[in-house]
Amino acid sequence: MGGVASPLEIGVTLVSGSTEHTSEDALSALVGLVEADLEACNRVIVARMDSPVALIPQLAAHIVAAGGKRLRPLLTLASARLCGYPDQPNAARHVDLAACVEFIHTATLLHDDVVDESQLRRGLASANAVFGNKASVLVGDFLFARAFQLMVDDGSLRVLAILSKAAATIAEGEVLQLVTQNDLSTTEARYLEVVQGKTAALFAAACQIGAVVAGRPEPEETALSTYGMKLGIAFQLVDDALDYVADQATLGKTIGDDFREGKITLPVLVAFLAGDAQEKAFWQRTVEALEQTDDDLDQAMRLIADHGAIGVTLESAQRFVQDAKDALMVFPDSPIRRALCEVADYTVQRLR
Amino acid sequence: MGGVASPLEIGVTLVSGSTEHTSEDALSALVGLVEADLEACNRVIVARMDSPVALIPQLAAHIVAAGGKRLRPLLTLASARLCGYPDQPNAARHVDLAACVEFIHTATLLHDDVVDESQLRRGLASANAVFGNKASVLVGDFLFARAFQLMVDDGSLRVLAILSKAAATIAEGEVLQLVTQNDLSTTEARYLEVVQGKTAALFAAACQIGAVVAGRPEPEETALSTYGMKLGIAFQLVDDALDYVADQATLGKTIGDDFREGKITLPVLVAFLAGDAQEKAFWQRTVEALEQTDDDLDQAMRLIADHGAIGVTLESAQRFVQDAKDALMVFPDSPIRRALCEVADYTVQRLR
Repeated sequence: MGGVASPLEIGVTLVSGSTEHTSEDALSALVGLVEADLEACNRVIVARMDSPVALIPQLAAHIVAAGGKRLRPLLTLASARLCGYPDQPNAARHVDLAACVEFIHTATLLHDDVVDESQLRRGLASANAVFGNKASVLVGDFLFARAFQLMVDDGSLRVLAILSKAAATIAEGEVLQLVTQNDLSTTEARYLEVVQGKTAALFAAACQIGAVVAGRPEPEETALSTYGMKLGIAFQLVDDALDYVADQATLGKTIGDDFREGKITLPVLVAFLAGDAQEKAFWQRTVEALEQTDDDLDQAMRLIADHGAIGVTLESAQRFVQDAKDALMVFPDSPIRRALCEVADYTVQRLR
Repeated sequence: MGGVASPLEIGVTLVSGSTEHTSEDALSALVGLVEADLEACNRVIVARMDSPVALIPQLAAHIVAAGGKRLRPLLTLASARLCGYPDQPNAARHVDLAACVEFIHTATLLHDDVVDESQLRRGLASANAVFGNKASVLVGDFLFARAFQLMVDDGSLRVLAILSKAAATIAEGEVLQLVTQNDLSTTEARYLEVVQGKTAALFAAACQIGAVVAGRPEPEETALSTYGMKLGIAFQLVDDALDYVADQATLGKTIGDDFREGKITLPVLVAFLAGDAQEKAFWQRTVEALEQTDDDLDQAMRLIADHGAIGVTLESAQRFVQDAKDALMVFPDSPIRRALCEVADYTVQRLR
């Protein structure tokens, strides 16, 4: 367990650590607008993931410091500011709740990596690979509980309702993904249900609670929730495409993970449905029966390219991006609104 | 996955399913006093563990219906009644919160069995053995989130604070157990920290929230929290003793589980510290290095018996039982108080 960053060291790396999926340019514009908030949020994260049981902050630091882009807490902070949450020294509810959102996200990452038996996360050894599955499950539980303690400290039952529902929806989405895994009869609608649950529900909640802390009326809550939901779906669609096109160095994760696990994503569904009998047999052998040889990933990528499945996936993502941006139009034009629209655009552009 | 009880079938088995650790006599007295509450609680459990993702209620039913004794929700129900919570048709907060407590408990059981790689739970195949580790982790997450949704519906921030803190403490206790595993230099104090976290914290919270819903003053909250904490510690001490004396048929779990995993429990600590050099070497080989042969469990049980380690563990448990009963003396004598004292007594007597 050597080389693990201490919580104090993380404080330094957190702020600049936005290197993963979404284009840095679009994110830096948004980060620039809420920079002080994000720094405060990182301090809350470090302070609240502490525990007398030293392994907890050690393991949490490993994943929290591993170069995550803080996209979800950023959305909470930016949404609160978009809704006019006051910029005063004693107004920090949005900061605490942004930390909450990151804790819930981190907990699901820890459990995901156990479930997926992942060895890499953002290009580094995953927590389960370093600390073992047991510790990852339990520290995930701790962070989840800690998130709820933070919400209770905040004191809003509305926020608690939104985030506890999101947490249940995430778990439902993950279980549904497990059920559809290795099943090529999965429909696109069912795939989108998985994506909405496992990814987009937390994006939606992260945005919505920004409106709640700012005390905005329901139409603005709904608008931000819709923005987050559509953005989250687009984000996951692009992620699923990246698993069949990006190389490991730029993506920061092992390419072909989804393929090796037999996850049924849109690129696979498109290529499978458009394929001839021989190609269908290939997919049945590789992602349903999980009988794979070394050359199969290359062949999968070829078939996906031949049938334009990446393009189809991106077009779908682009439609969700447009919906996301449209939802924000209830708010007057502002630098924050423009930055949120840019983040949505770059979600897709990171692949083009 | 054949033979899994549907949520509707469970409704029937739940009420009578109290067969595990604590003596049935003592429990039936308590059950008899809150029977209608417990039936209502079982209905809430079945209703709220439902999900459009069918695997979730299937897996949850497997563990919820597996003959658990509902000890923790019973404590919430009985504590509320002890505190004079009104027996009226529209007064059901204690019932909903008792279901919450059971959901949190069930979530931790699911994760525990994954962490411990258990094959049996209460004499039946564990959920992870039937449905796999992945589904167990994720359905645990779902139940945990659902518990918080139930609390939000109840609307008490005080209850949310107590149970979110308990959830964090449970995770800390579990991680601490992982850290002390295979480490014979663990002190008895550290072992008790593990026990307080992983087991007693939820007992304490389950009792305390009974006083909260009844709107009782802090001394009564504290008294019930203390009762639950001490009872929980005694309960776990006896459980740890049972792992070295009971046979599988009566205990309903695999004997020697703790030994095989190298868990450092009080019977092992007592026997190790009292042992000669050869015996110390035995413990180091078996529970530290985990190099075990078929005869080692018998030898461990012999050494534990020779050094009176079960007796020492029971005496310790007995002291906690006394503390638990003493704590209840702030309440006037009543059938419920007597039943709660009997439950404490039988926690230890189930081994005598």
